[in-house]
Amino acid sequence: MKTGTIYGVGLGPGDPDLMSVRADRLVRGAKHVAYFRKAGRAGRARKIVDGMLLQDAVEFAMEYPVTTEIPLDDPAYSATLSDFYTYVTSRLIALADAGEDVVVLCEGDPFFYGSFMHLHTRLSGRVPVSVVPAITGMSAAWTATGTPVTWGDDVLTVLLGTMPETELARRMADSDAIVVMKVGRNLPRVRAALDRAGKLEQAWLVECASMESERAVPLVEAGDRTVPYFSIVIVHGQGRRP
Amino acid sequence: MKTGTIYGVGLGPGDPDLMSVRADRLVRGAKHVAYFRKAGRAGRARKIVDGMLLQDAVEFAMEYPVTTEIPLDDPAYSATLSDFYTYVTSRLIALADAGEDVVVLCEGDPFFYGSFMHLHTRLSGRVPVSVVPAITGMSAAWTATGTPVTWGDDVLTVLLGTMPETELARRMADSDAIVVMKVGRNLPRVRAALDRAGKLEQAWLVECASMESERAVPLVEAGDRTVPYFSIVIVHGQGRRP
Repeated sequence: MKTGTIYGVGLGPGDPDLMSVRADRLVRGAKHVAYFRKAGRAGRARKIVDGMLLQDAVEFAMEYPVTTEIPLDDPAYSATLSDFYTYVTSRLIALADAGEDVVVLCEGDPFFYGSFMHLHTRLSGRVPVSVVPAITGMSAAWTATGTPVTWGDDVLTVLLGTMPETELARRMADSDAIVVMKVGRNLPRVRAALDRAGKLEQAWLVECASMESERAVPLVEAGDRTVPYFSIVIVHGQGRRP
Repeated sequence: MKTGTIYGVGLGPGDPDLMSVRADRLVRGAKHVAYFRKAGRAGRARKIVDGMLLQDAVEFAMEYPVTTEIPLDDPAYSATLSDFYTYVTSRLIALADAGEDVVVLCEGDPFFYGSFMHLHTRLSGRVPVSVVPAITGMSAAWTATGTPVTWGDDVLTVLLGTMPETELARRMADSDAIVVMKVGRNLPRVRAALDRAGKLEQAWLVECASMESERAVPLVEAGDRTVPYFSIVIVHGQGRRP
């Protein structure tokens, strides 16, 4: 019997119409699908493919044992997650060993800040793995602003909203174009860092890029609302343009 | 009569199977397609959609008046290109005014170092424009290396091979993950900068990502060959991973 393949399939930013032709085909034909989700939730990746799965597809919801209950820097957080990833990996390997292909649904691009990477390192060398790249959330975000993000020799820096303010400000000041991922409740710090870097007036806030609830506004007009975790801040480059 | 829409359609890294479902549908249904190309060449974007166009699709090949005949920093280069973009824009506007939709074929993602941006700035506010984001060449490149590019809080810096060596080295030393676009004949300088930043041993060279001729190797094993213009150098981040 042939060993099955574990497919890490990038679904892109959220609009199913922005999935790749390959991802669309793999999802629609999958006998086994797996996806991460918070316990008690539908799962963001799973929601993207609503209505696309085979009626008899077998679903494996990989439910995180923790999210915010343990602080990120507590060793218990890392140990708990590591055990979880090891467990779900063993389940996926058992399916592959039984000759079954499994499509793992991944938001965004699997190799760009993705959860699938934690499975990929554990699966590699044990069963066949195939990764399907995808449109990143940041591509959908800069598209939503209606303005190109990088021109000519512009340098683009991708930062995380979780970084310290001083570090954010230093890197923002030193880059032409900027993307800040995982903004969410870090928005006040991101805003302060942009201000220190002299770039607050040029920044855009994008929520739910490519989805029905998409919203893209200049950050100074965004107010003090709470924004979703996956919100993205963009500063466009101003490079060479004939 | 309704004014037509100019669609800037990202085709992704080169494999038609990695086009988005939306791009695939727009390309296959287009009555008018436009694409940039070097005079006398088939055109890289046009080649991606070979066999996909309607038999009676009207093609508008937008042929660059110059490529390397005039140096980039010569004002004549910029002026010549500007006139060219203005001319093709007027042709596209004429089609839209006549009620025709036009699909402009774009390699990669239209708003990420793309030629379409030069049309977009000229079309905006004059006729309806719709941009379809796509999988970037860099996503296909890091997928080709078989290793995730960013983990946890890794900072990703996107650089251009055309930048000065000192500038490249400084930014490489200051980033966790690195993508260098447009490597081509700048490879010796990119290699020297990586060496100065202490990251040469960790770098990968990816040629023709996602295409049949795809090749991904550690840069130190790549030798002194000439590589295609669109080759990409990747240094993977090493951030937090439970």
